[in-house]
Amino acid sequence: MSAPRTADLGFARLDPDRAARTGTPEVVFAGGKTPDETVGCLAGLLDAGVPLAWATRVDEATATAVRDRWPDAHIDPVARVAWVGTPPPPVGQVLVLTAGTSDGPVAAEVVATLAASGVGCRRVDDVGVAGVHRVLAVAPDMAAADAVVVVAGMDGALPSVVAGLTDRLVVAVPTSVGYGAAFEGLAALLTMLTACAPGVLVVNIDNGFGAGIAAARIARSAHAQP
Amino acid sequence: MSAPRTADLGFARLDPDRAARTGTPEVVFAGGKTPDETVGCLAGLLDAGVPLAWATRVDEATATAVRDRWPDAHIDPVARVAWVGTPPPPVGQVLVLTAGTSDGPVAAEVVATLAASGVGCRRVDDVGVAGVHRVLAVAPDMAAADAVVVVAGMDGALPSVVAGLTDRLVVAVPTSVGYGAAFEGLAALLTMLTACAPGVLVVNIDNGFGAGIAAARIARSAHAQP
Amino acid sequence: MSAPRTADLGFARLDPDRAARTGTPEVVFAGGKTPDETVGCLAGLLDAGVPLAWATRVDEATATAVRDRWPDAHIDPVARVAWVGTPPPPVGQVLVLTAGTSDGPVAAEVVATLAASGVGCRRVDDVGVAGVHRVLAVAPDMAAADAVVVVAGMDGALPSVVAGLTDRLVVAVPTSVGYGAAFEGLAALLTMLTACAPGVLVVNIDNGFGAGIAAARIARSAHAQP
Amino acid sequence: MSAPRTADLGFARLDPDRAARTGTPEVVFAGGKTPDETVGCLAGLLDAGVPLAWATRVDEATATAVRDRWPDAHIDPVARVAWVGTPPPPVGQVLVLTAGTSDGPVAAEVVATLAASGVGCRRVDDVGVAGVHRVLAVAPDMAAADAVVVVAGMDGALPSVVAGLTDRLVVAVPTSVGYGAAFEGLAALLTMLTACAPGVLVVNIDNGFGAGIAAARIARSAHAQP
Amino acid sequence: MSAPRTADLGFARLDPDRAARTGTPEVVFAGGKTPDETVGCLAGLLDAGVPLAWATRVDEATATAVRDRWPDAHIDPVARVAWVGTPPPPVGQVLVLTAGTSDGPVAAEVVATLAASGVGCRRVDDVGVAGVHRVLAVAPDMAAADAVVVVAGMDGALPSVVAGLTDRLVVAVPTSVGYGAAFEGLAALLTMLTACAPGVLVVNIDNGFGAGIAAARIARSAHAQP
Amino acid sequence: MSAPRTADLGFARLDPDRAARTGTPEVVFAGGKTPDETVGCLAGLLDAGVPLAWATRVDEATATAVRDRWPDAHIDPVARVAWVGTPPPPVGQVLVLTAGTSDGPVAAEVVATLAASGVGCRRVDDVGVAGVHRVLAVAPDMAAADAVVVVAGMDGALPSVVAGLTDRLVVAVPTSVGYGAAFEGLAALLTMLTACAPGVLVVNIDNGFGAGIAAARIARSAHAQP
Amino acid sequence: MSAPRTADLGFARLDPDRAARTGTPEVVFAGGKTPDETVGCLAGLLDAGVPLAWATRVDEATATAVRDRWPDAHIDPVARVAWVGTPPPPVGQVLVLTAGTSDGPVAAEVVATLAASGVGCRRVDDVGVAGVHRVLAVAPDMAAADAVVVVAGMDGALPSVVAGLTDRLVVAVPTSVGYGAAFEGLAALLTMLTACAPGVLVVNIDNGFGAGIAAARIARSAHAQP
Amino acid sequence: MSAPRTADLGFARLDPDRAARTGTPEVVFAGGKTPDETVGCLAGLLDAGVPLAWATRVDEATATAVRDRWPDAHIDPVARVAWVGTPPPPVGQVLVLTAGTSDGPVAAEVVATLAASGVGCRRVDDVGVAGVHRVLAVAPDMAAADAVVVVAGMDGALPSVVAGLTDRLVVAVPTSVGYGAAFEGLAALLTMLTACAPGVLVVNIDNGFGAGIAAARIARSAHAQP
Ligand SMILES: Nc1ncnc2c1ncn2[C@@H]1O[C@H](COP(=O)(O)O)[C@@H](O)[C@H]1O
Ligand SMILES: Nc1ncnc2c1ncn2[C@@H]1O[C@H](COP(=O)(O)O)[C@@H](O)[C@H]1O
Ligand SMILES: Nc1ncnc2c1ncn2[C@@H]1O[C@H](COP(=O)(O)O)[C@@H](O)[C@H]1O
Ligand SMILES: Nc1ncnc2c1ncn2[C@@H]1O[C@H](COP(=O)(O)O)[C@@H](O)[C@H]1O
Ligand SMILES: [Mg+2]
Ligand SMILES: [Mg+2]
Ligand SMILES: [Mg+2]
Ligand SMILES: [Mg+2]
Ligand SMILES: [Mg+2]
Ligand SMILES: [Mg+2]
Ligand SMILES: [Mg+2]
Ligand SMILES: [Mg+2]
Repeated sequence: MSAPRTADLGFARLDPDRAARTGTPEVVFAGGKTPDETVGCLAGLLDAGVPLAWATRVDEATATAVRDRWPDAHIDPVARVAWVGTPPPPVGQVLVLTAGTSDGPVAAEVVATLAASGVGCRRVDDVGVAGVHRVLAVAPDMAAADAVVVVAGMDGALPSVVAGLTDRLVVAVPTSVGYGAAFEGLAALLTMLTACAPGVLVVNIDNGFGAGIAAARIARSAHAQP
Repeated sequence: MSAPRTADLGFARLDPDRAARTGTPEVVFAGGKTPDETVGCLAGLLDAGVPLAWATRVDEATATAVRDRWPDAHIDPVARVAWVGTPPPPVGQVLVLTAGTSDGPVAAEVVATLAASGVGCRRVDDVGVAGVHRVLAVAPDMAAADAVVVVAGMDGALPSVVAGLTDRLVVAVPTSVGYGAAFEGLAALLTMLTACAPGVLVVNIDNGFGAGIAAARIARSAHAQP
Repeated sequence: MSAPRTADLGFARLDPDRAARTGTPEVVFAGGKTPDETVGCLAGLLDAGVPLAWATRVDEATATAVRDRWPDAHIDPVARVAWVGTPPPPVGQVLVLTAGTSDGPVAAEVVATLAASGVGCRRVDDVGVAGVHRVLAVAPDMAAADAVVVVAGMDGALPSVVAGLTDRLVVAVPTSVGYGAAFEGLAALLTMLTACAPGVLVVNIDNGFGAGIAAARIARSAHAQP
Repeated sequence: MSAPRTADLGFARLDPDRAARTGTPEVVFAGGKTPDETVGCLAGLLDAGVPLAWATRVDEATATAVRDRWPDAHIDPVARVAWVGTPPPPVGQVLVLTAGTSDGPVAAEVVATLAASGVGCRRVDDVGVAGVHRVLAVAPDMAAADAVVVVAGMDGALPSVVAGLTDRLVVAVPTSVGYGAAFEGLAALLTMLTACAPGVLVVNIDNGFGAGIAAARIARSAHAQP
Repeated sequence: MSAPRTADLGFARLDPDRAARTGTPEVVFAGGKTPDETVGCLAGLLDAGVPLAWATRVDEATATAVRDRWPDAHIDPVARVAWVGTPPPPVGQVLVLTAGTSDGPVAAEVVATLAASGVGCRRVDDVGVAGVHRVLAVAPDMAAADAVVVVAGMDGALPSVVAGLTDRLVVAVPTSVGYGAAFEGLAALLTMLTACAPGVLVVNIDNGFGAGIAAARIARSAHAQP
Repeated sequence: MSAPRTADLGFARLDPDRAARTGTPEVVFAGGKTPDETVGCLAGLLDAGVPLAWATRVDEATATAVRDRWPDAHIDPVARVAWVGTPPPPVGQVLVLTAGTSDGPVAAEVVATLAASGVGCRRVDDVGVAGVHRVLAVAPDMAAADAVVVVAGMDGALPSVVAGLTDRLVVAVPTSVGYGAAFEGLAALLTMLTACAPGVLVVNIDNGFGAGIAAARIARSAHAQP
Repeated sequence: MSAPRTADLGFARLDPDRAARTGTPEVVFAGGKTPDETVGCLAGLLDAGVPLAWATRVDEATATAVRDRWPDAHIDPVARVAWVGTPPPPVGQVLVLTAGTSDGPVAAEVVATLAASGVGCRRVDDVGVAGVHRVLAVAPDMAAADAVVVVAGMDGALPSVVAGLTDRLVVAVPTSVGYGAAFEGLAALLTMLTACAPGVLVVNIDNGFGAGIAAARIARSAHAQP
Repeated sequence: MSAPRTADLGFARLDPDRAARTGTPEVVFAGGKTPDETVGCLAGLLDAGVPLAWATRVDEATATAVRDRWPDAHIDPVARVAWVGTPPPPVGQVLVLTAGTSDGPVAAEVVATLAASGVGCRRVDDVGVAGVHRVLAVAPDMAAADAVVVVAGMDGALPSVVAGLTDRLVVAVPTSVGYGAAFEGLAALLTMLTACAPGVLVVNIDNGFGAGIAAARIARSAHAQP
């Protein structure tokens, strides 16, 4: 890890060698930053030579500021992701499942993260366990995938069922969809952590980004040249 | 369970045989869906042949979108329920009690769910235990009902008292009415789960829909032809 | 509710007319009582004329005290249930499912409660969703039952799947089986309260007694003479 | 508050003027103290001239140490209270109610605290709301009392009902009786804090001592000579 | 409790005899009610003959509706209390203390409740323990009062200190003032429940109404004619 | 998923085809089972033809029962793992790190799981971030591994640092080591879920088994023949 | 503590001698106060002779009211701090670190508090542990400082690493930056409380003011004349 | 931080240069370690040349193992601290206060930590706020100390009062003393984090070690030669 660089912007100290070290570039978390700060970070990363400067949790004001600066930036308003530059061509394939339509925006963040990471993806929505035949129907897709990302709110029961049907790693994303005892995603989070089938690994509530990065690493390593 | 159908809309995979399997059709949870998505799901269900396409947690924008598409849709803005089609004629009778007037909107969701399910209902509001003679006064209504739904926030004490007065099943719905240590319905939820009288069954906070479905099943089975 | 009797033992005020009022006799909760107190309560109920005097949460010391007093008492040490007298002959049938073998003692309490209540039962253990074909295999048993009780710890996901397969009411019992983020049954409790399929009604963690009473009422009402 | 005394024992700094200031002497909390420390505190208080030296949460080892030192000490092993000296003659009357027999030890601490405080008391056990006629039956006792202490675990619903029946202050004591979602008394505590009837004041879980002190003050002030 | 009346408005079942039974009339909780519902309840109570019809948690819209109906209604916008009619002349005196200025609105609710209950009051603001001489300075006011209400947010430490200085009952009101680990009043609530001095009785977070009712009962009973 | 087998033992319904479906055989969770039940499950799995029958959370009594039945069983008392049969020869290598020596038993469960799964492993203990040079020193080991499992209690900060140093997936295992605000592993769990570096995937508190299974899948897929 | 003064404004009782007693003047917490109340408190403090009257948690409306009254007031809208008067000249130096750019506003409150307290400061932003070389690079700054304040949200892991690199006291400020399992700063708070390196002292979530006061005391005492 | 050493014992990787880096040697946390592991760590530290090898959370079995190996080891069974070697001569003075006698063992850990760190200390027990004159009486001791450590359970109110009386830093240690809503120290922890007086810094529940280390650093820096 000999002496990685730091790009000092004052309000930020960018880490332009993070991709070399970890396989993933520093990605700007726009939550809690002003639009100017996010734009400044993206510009700093581009200045430092990253091929793709990328931000998550991008709200409308920030999206506007990004587009004002880089008119050809890619912006996905549902996923709240923006990037400047060109993602690598996709390799492999990750299967992204949602339990219900309402989990869509988090799944969109997974999909955008995979795209930015240069990994292929197939998304099948709304296969929650209340109609378990819908899950069973995607078992062949699981077998064809390098990894399965399962996005679910409310009871968060889908990953337990999926993990009993496949030998792929299951990356489980609890969402804040639901009300009352769903406690903003806590119910789904606890369900996934205590899944009765092994092979389920969990990320933070609504963290489509983290799930996408993890799944991308699995897919890329499965398709790496030996 | 041989091969139920799935109606694939892309953003949703509807389960049109759910009523055949479970006695309850797939009901669209409009929370977290765009108005277009909810309308799309209702249309998909109608296309698949359901007699009543139905959504809960319908906000104003979604209600407008539903009415724009189906001008004769039934919309109950207090219950936040909408449906297209005609419910079955009512059988049986469920007694719906509230502890206070503020629990009204959740009780309205119970009532709308019973109506859509083709089950009769009698509603008596504001019989909280601070004036326990009001509860005692409805004991005859309990005896005449197939099941009792009790909707209560704050201390959530009403189901414990009701269950000591009747041999009917008590479906308890904690509400988020209250403040401070009510913790958005958690206090009432815990009270109901630990009710000192048996016969109390609990649904999620503010889940009038779930209570209505359960009570409807009890009523319908009591009035089924042998 | 005109003037139910009270049998005053000093340390307890028994409610011998509870079965007349609610269909369920007062059942002694031995948790937190001394063996003498539990025996005293059972004796008081028999004196007041109940046909079956019955206690739950009976530990070894209490079981011994009960047997010392009534040598032919029925005692189930796994269910921790004891009774004196003869239960009514069984009518109907409740299906009791467990997610795993470790949920057995809670299921035993359900089974004992059904027996004491005069309701038939079929128990199938260890059909957790990690091998979902095991759940699918019991779908015919669900169709044949008056109600389904589902006992599950850890992720508590089984009731969500069951409720998507049957039109019977599902009484869900979260158990304290598990560790870490299972938080002594809290994870399973929240899962069940937020189950994505309607028709799931929830009782307290490890409350096999409450689930048994509720299922018994459903079964008896289905088999009542009109 | 001019210069109250402090009796310095090194490991403790006693407050012998507390009764003069607050109407209640310093009472030794034996929880977390060694038997020697508790005995030392009691001796220090007697040395400083208090008429009654008194400890709560007294376990068996401490009870033995107290009796060894003062053979005529009063020790109540159920209430876990010990005192040396003679309480004042009782004035007034507090009504102490329990929801169930298992709440007995906490009620015993209330009763012992009233006795040590020189206040009369009437205790009626096991009037929980599952048989609400038992509560209604004690309404005349409430009217005759200076204050009502209500001790309840599990759902903690009894104070809400009592407060709707009387104009006396209701001092509510949640107990740790119960299991699962009772969460060691948290459920009852939240119920009591959110009681839908005013006039309910709450103390800590299992805090029979605090409830007794409060009720004693109400009773003594009602019987004070003007 | 022979047969109290119930005034049935459909959406509400008023309890006009509550003052006769409990010393406190039914007071309308406007939180969660529409302005029309609150006005309807107040009108119903007046129709049933109460001398003072009274509501709490009155927001601006409801205040306007009340004034439109009864131009001479008394409305306190800080306390969010409204009443129609004339309160009884004040007897006795309750001391109301706040820890900080930000606790003012809750103290205002206490003061309004005392006024409506016909009890006198003295209010001293901002005597928090960070400058403990301010608390010591009000010790004479405590001695002159019938009861002390202490309103405090953040650490909620003030009642513990007050209860060590007075023989009056301390009614403690935790407030939601603070941020972070104050957890909307939870920190103050737990502090007050575990106060190391006895004589502290606790009400719900921000529940100035409950504290006022309790303090009024203490004051009135101290000034009752024997 | 056509028709997996079920081996019905009455108290258990084994899933002998789970390895074929998911790459991992059914592994017996001995927690909450009697020694006889665990032995029965292992025997049932062997009867059904699994090459390695395996249990976790094996306490002393169960270990003895296993050894009584199969004298050459492999038993690791620190990891609380037992197996009958011969694991596959190891491929690949997983790096297992602990933050402190006290995390050892959980790391032992990871190591045993890897061994039973036929995956190689290197374990380096006690590289917590309080001496961050210890973590930096293992960066080369990370680069040589197929995946990194990080086991940490107390603050759970180690995975965040590791994930910033490597492009391997980090499987994070919070442990219940610590006291007070560690809340039995909750602090570490939340830390890991919110790790500021992506590439961290989390399992349940103390779940060395789940982490081992996940890491084994990553390692095996990296060494699979294309 | 002989008789500190109190400045009685009615709605506030100011403590003008607090600086003499504690080294820190009373600082007005504008959260929960009206603009008029905050201005009134500042004026009262100036009237009582404090050299610098100072408020925190100042929103826009309050900032405007302050500037209207004192046109040359110092207002920092990011830190939400305002003061009237001139701070003392700075002595010593505190190092303020943030884990990420989003923690900036809390760091700004630390910096403003140090300035108002007359203590020098050096701020280095965005040195979170995901790029640990950035932390290592500031080790010389730590050695040159009197104390280190570390501001971090999400996982809150930075203080643990810093405390392993320096012999300065580390004042740790958890922030509410993050989402999901960050639970508004709870995750970072627990991490910091359980930091595996000693020398970490913790303040409330987002409490830059408290951290600044504490660090200022350390710095001033290090530079005090003996 | 150039290349600190690591002493590799296999099950532990000791950090013998930690004192040089941080002013505090690595101290062995015996909780969760076997007696052999703790002895091994102490021996390893001595081998690496530390002048004082030291462990906390030492239970009886470990104390015996330490004494067996080093007969002249210092062992404090109340503080649960053991050390081998000679502490430095004491400089400065820290004031250690407890709220009650039951907080004694945690205070003992503070005192032992100060002794091992070569810092003087004065301890005054049992000055809780229920008798606030006891706190006021130690104000002169505060003024004479370099720092004040306040140890308190139950309501945890003492640090708020102390911080209003002194310009010394207050290191607050919540303890698990109490019951019910004390929630094993959570109540005191939240109180201290939200203390209404600045200058209060908080450590983990029962963490006398961390408080002692912090106070020692303050004292040593106050007495360092310039
Ligand atoms: N208000 C509601 N509360 C809980 N569940 C609901 C509600 N409305 C509909 N559902 C259920 O939510 C599921 C639909 O989720 P989705 O696929 O996101 O539309 C169906 O299984 C419904 O039975
Ligand atoms: N941002 C802040 N966070 C915590 N406490 C503060 C803050 N600003 C001022 N204070 C303290 O809050 C108290 C003022 O409370 P109040 O009487 O409501 O103005 C004073 O003791 C201040 O030291
Ligand atoms: N009582 C204690 N509380 C908190 N941390 C401690 C305690 N005793 C030692 N430590 C720290 O725990 C770490 C040792 O962890 P371990 O490697 O498991 O021995 C060291 O960094 C010590 O500074
Ligand atoms: N059972 C109890 N519950 C709560 N507080 C108590 C109890 N018994 C005594 N106390 C109070 O605890 C304080 C004594 O604490 P200590 O100095 O540790 O003995 C006194 O102020 C008593 O009023
Ligand atoms: Mg759906
Ligand atoms: Mg009402
Ligand atoms: Mg199984
Ligand atoms: Mg009873
Ligand atoms: Mg103030
Ligand atoms: Mg170590
Ligand atoms: Mg950054
Ligand atoms: Mg004491």
